[in-house]
Amino acid sequence: MHTHSDKDIYDLIKAQRPGYSLDRAFYTDAGIFERDREHIFRNHWILAAHASELRQTGDYRLFDIAGENVILVRGRDGAVYAHYNVCRHRGSRVLLDNCGNSPALTCKYHGWTYAHDGTLSAAKHMSEDFDRSQYGLRPCHVRILEGLIFVCLAADDVPDFAPVADRLTPFLRLHGTAAARVAEQQVFPVHANWKLAIENYLECYHCKPAHREYCRVEIKADRIGDGTPAALARYEARDCEWRANAQRLGTLRAEVGTKLPLDERLPQAPIANAYRAPLRASHLSATEDGRPAAPLMGEFPDYDGGETALAAGPFTYMLAYNDHAVFFAFVPRDAEHSDIVCTWLVQGQAQEGKDYDLARLSWLWSVTTKQDKAIIEANAAGIRSPSYQPGPCSLLEADVAGFREWYLSSIGPPSRTSRLAEIHGGRYFTA
Amino acid sequence: MHTHSDKDIYDLIKAQRPGYSLDRAFYTDAGIFERDREHIFRNHWILAAHASELRQTGDYRLFDIAGENVILVRGRDGAVYAHYNVCRHRGSRVLLDNCGNSPALTCKYHGWTYAHDGTLSAAKHMSEDFDRSQYGLRPCHVRILEGLIFVCLAADDVPDFAPVADRLTPFLRLHGTAAARVAEQQVFPVHANWKLAIENYLECYHCKPAHREYCRVEIKADRIGDGTPAALARYEARDCEWRANAQRLGTLRAEVGTKLPLDERLPQAPIANAYRAPLRASHLSATEDGRPAAPLMGEFPDYDGGETALAAGPFTYMLAYNDHAVFFAFVPRDAEHSDIVCTWLVQGQAQEGKDYDLARLSWLWSVTTKQDKAIIEANAAGIRSPSYQPGPCSLLEADVAGFREWYLSSIGPPSRTSRLAEIHGGRYFTA
Amino acid sequence: MHTHSDKDIYDLIKAQRPGYSLDRAFYTDAGIFERDREHIFRNHWILAAHASELRQTGDYRLFDIAGENVILVRGRDGAVYAHYNVCRHRGSRVLLDNCGNSPALTCKYHGWTYAHDGTLSAAKHMSEDFDRSQYGLRPCHVRILEGLIFVCLAADDVPDFAPVADRLTPFLRLHGTAAARVAEQQVFPVHANWKLAIENYLECYHCKPAHREYCRVEIKADRIGDGTPAALARYEARDCEWRANAQRLGTLRAEVGTKLPLDERLPQAPIANAYRAPLRASHLSATEDGRPAAPLMGEFPDYDGGETALAAGPFTYMLAYNDHAVFFAFVPRDAEHSDIVCTWLVQGQAQEGKDYDLARLSWLWSVTTKQDKAIIEANAAGIRSPSYQPGPCSLLEADVAGFREWYLSSIGPPSRTSRLAEIHGGRYFTA
Repeated sequence: MHTHSDKDIYDLIKAQRPGYSLDRAFYTDAGIFERDREHIFRNHWILAAHASELRQTGDYRLFDIAGENVILVRGRDGAVYAHYNVCRHRGSRVLLDNCGNSPALTCKYHGWTYAHDGTLSAAKHMSEDFDRSQYGLRPCHVRILEGLIFVCLAADDVPDFAPVADRLTPFLRLHGTAAARVAEQQVFPVHANWKLAIENYLECYHCKPAHREYCRVEIKADRIGDGTPAALARYEARDCEWRANAQRLGTLRAEVGTKLPLDERLPQAPIANAYRAPLRASHLSATEDGRPAAPLMGEFPDYDGGETALAAGPFTYMLAYNDHAVFFAFVPRDAEHSDIVCTWLVQGQAQEGKDYDLARLSWLWSVTTKQDKAIIEANAAGIRSPSYQPGPCSLLEADVAGFREWYLSSIGPPSRTSRLAEIHGGRYFTA
Repeated sequence: MHTHSDKDIYDLIKAQRPGYSLDRAFYTDAGIFERDREHIFRNHWILAAHASELRQTGDYRLFDIAGENVILVRGRDGAVYAHYNVCRHRGSRVLLDNCGNSPALTCKYHGWTYAHDGTLSAAKHMSEDFDRSQYGLRPCHVRILEGLIFVCLAADDVPDFAPVADRLTPFLRLHGTAAARVAEQQVFPVHANWKLAIENYLECYHCKPAHREYCRVEIKADRIGDGTPAALARYEARDCEWRANAQRLGTLRAEVGTKLPLDERLPQAPIANAYRAPLRASHLSATEDGRPAAPLMGEFPDYDGGETALAAGPFTYMLAYNDHAVFFAFVPRDAEHSDIVCTWLVQGQAQEGKDYDLARLSWLWSVTTKQDKAIIEANAAGIRSPSYQPGPCSLLEADVAGFREWYLSSIGPPSRTSRLAEIHGGRYFTA
Repeated sequence: MHTHSDKDIYDLIKAQRPGYSLDRAFYTDAGIFERDREHIFRNHWILAAHASELRQTGDYRLFDIAGENVILVRGRDGAVYAHYNVCRHRGSRVLLDNCGNSPALTCKYHGWTYAHDGTLSAAKHMSEDFDRSQYGLRPCHVRILEGLIFVCLAADDVPDFAPVADRLTPFLRLHGTAAARVAEQQVFPVHANWKLAIENYLECYHCKPAHREYCRVEIKADRIGDGTPAALARYEARDCEWRANAQRLGTLRAEVGTKLPLDERLPQAPIANAYRAPLRASHLSATEDGRPAAPLMGEFPDYDGGETALAAGPFTYMLAYNDHAVFFAFVPRDAEHSDIVCTWLVQGQAQEGKDYDLARLSWLWSVTTKQDKAIIEANAAGIRSPSYQPGPCSLLEADVAGFREWYLSSIGPPSRTSRLAEIHGGRYFTA
């Protein structure tokens, strides 16, 4: 089915059991994907690029999401503009190359030319009553936060960006993202609905079975991926030691120092949030051998061996270490395809080969995201079976349950209230 | 169209002319394929593997059919189990490799572990009220008959396997399929609806135009593919001579000796059936030069130069010679795709290179199935043309007409009766 | 959506703004493509082959259009026959190779054999009451005009070919297409709806931005692609000089000499039409260096440096020079795919390597059509964006506006009248 009445959707939503995976239609149906587009993709900010990719006037890059293509371009006034890449004449893509530099945005078809700010500056042979001012490129909402360029596909009511900025700025400043540059970008096309990709990111229940390398680096895996009393005790001991040192270094001062209670992350899952935590004692950075990967970034005076985990809305996540940061954008394509776009940032002056080795830098999240792609696709394959039926989440998947509740409320009737409290008697974690 | 009311389907079925090919929708429409799934795929047994592929405890292989994926695995108790390959946690495929050996069935995503019998033996971090016994792998019906492993996707009412077993056992014992092993498997993906693939198998009207090699080996082609008086006489003479010899050898004793009247195979087309017939006098086995291909199988004391043709439901067929057997499983994929899975069995102790040459053994049905794939796909391509209209079957296509009548009755109203008698005045063969 | 009520379509048509590009559905929707098939593809002639491709008895070639496949074959009586390539037995494609020679049309599946004129000449083993005369290949309408083979998919009411023939014959005779032969054919698959491909062909507004090579050869680009007073004056001066010379040579005599007023081509856009015009003074033919490409064709006594532009219905176009002709057939595939089939003709006796160099001959329209494929596909990609909205046409796109009006009237309610007069106050060109 390709279109659904509100009633059909509302009945389907009502039939979902809290704490269970969703019915197949939510992961495969083109009509529900259209609904996701209208109710979710248009109502949230998503990371599209980094300011260092648009350094000079006229530098541009394209960002592709759910059938839309957005031009991000640096204007003569230094501002970054975002426009839908659709010529207002006959609808052609205006720019075709993924990135480049151009003094103006000229459509290759009939030469309609737009300034960097999107205004139509030239369109030959139009009739006398043609009003150029009505035919600028359609603007896409854009915000820059500490070097991170976010876009939002909203038609009119743009969601408030201030709470995102307020919550995340101290963390991004600590990591110096504004002065960083992109060292690497890898796109992982995933044959799965976007929700399966995000559900995978939101839990560590799969870390032990699926991510050997991750578990060697991250003691967090003991806490949110293992969760046995012994593992939790190991984590607490390491955390204690790490906090003392980080506070001494000033990398865990008040505004970035919250030791987030496990059950507090929950309701905020798709909202801005961040916290700091230690790596294993053996690791200063998320490298194979634990040694640093690149020059220190931002406000770090020395290695504190910590990691900052950050969420900026439902589609954008960051894991940052003292010397590099990795951003994850989960980009919907269609009902059964998504991209995971991984972007590695390093200190702005760092030079590849001299200051860092790209393979060492990108090792952990290249390996881990490749593993995730495989398990997400196996998940999607199983869900396509007619014999699939939703199953219950574990105590380590509270964020996944929270994400699903948020999702169903987002596309459901306005009156819907979260049913999170019905899951596991309201207790979400073993700790 | 993707879903159809019963009334739409019933009207369409009523409009089909007995003895003519079906309207295009039956060969292309996704909604009708869904109906085929519910009314046919779920109500019949299909050959999925051979017991020799699951010799040791923990040996498994996967079987893919119409969007489902089934795990076949040998348990510690020696039994073969069949489970839907969908984890009860979040729906992931549990096993990904097509075959292998595993002490337990562990999902690579979150480590849920199932015993070979499908019971959930480990699932960490579930809440206290989680009842493992409710979350075993969903079982798929399975039966083993003389080494052949059949599965059935039925939800509840499993079709009776006893008539299949009763009818076929003497033939399979004669050929020793229980003690055989798989020498070769070839999968032919066909861009055509499953019914076009089976219609192709059910008639020999195309043998002379399309299968030069087959006609050189099989004198049956004279009877069911040529059908002229001279050809029928040739067949009868050879049959007479062959019967005398086979009876003398004991390979045509009572329970496998029926000389099936041509018009008796008809109504049983999709049901279990089998009969024995001679190859050309030049051939002891279905090889290019007529010489044996491998050691004698089963109860054959010597070469009798015969072939056993066997049908086990609508999807599974066998052609067996004195020294090897070839199984054909017609596996629906979606409305316009199928697989023809060809499996060659040899005597269980026979060794490749020493006791048989694989290229000689698999020659006839490699060549012939490749030819069939091409003509089935050309058939499907023509049917996709808007200008296609159903045409009349020949006197040599009685089984095809019977198959279509069975098909329409299977998906049609319960009251539908076969209209076979309306075709060619009720006479189905020239002989 | 896959099927639409007349009312839905009529409402959508009414909502289209004259002089603007169409709503996305017209360029992407499978249901509207089905409507296009019934209302347009079946009601027009399209160029399918050239007579020189079917020189000998039994020469055949296949022509593929919108899911249909047509056999064109030269019969023993010298006539060219067109048949749907669908066997009347079970619907198989009868011929599979794109071209060849065959004494009869024999289906490879069951050997049904058709004479070149489509009558069923052999079908073995049919029942006594089988009437062969009822099972000839379904004929497709076919007409030959000066060597050009046109087909029409109409079921019954075949559109009148006489106006096409009457209007175009003098031009085709001038260019000697009847005695020509095919020197080259290139097929450009385009990921775009057929209307986007034709809209591209019908205007030269894109010539300056997109076709550098074309502009170097064709002074017409100054008139219909530039249109400034200076460019128009350049064109008029060259046209004046060229006319005098061409009239002197007899290549612009009365019946091919109309100097078509720009606004007269309009309403006839999808109907047969032709006119002659000069190349740049530097060019005798449409070659890179302006020198001739091949021996003179048809009635040309010498090079006059002109070009004949010809339209034969909505799908077929020709650009012919003194020594070669290029035909363009715009062939719909499905809602989002088309082919542009380019066919180069030369004088019938000309030999490659000796009389002409293929790369020089095919240079301009190889390069230009490749450029067009890219811009048409970029156009289609932009239109697929949800943010696409129809935009206004320029004064140089009158033929595109006319084409759209013709299209909407063709699939719309019988009462619909053209809204062309509402565009640009009824003035279509700057000249």
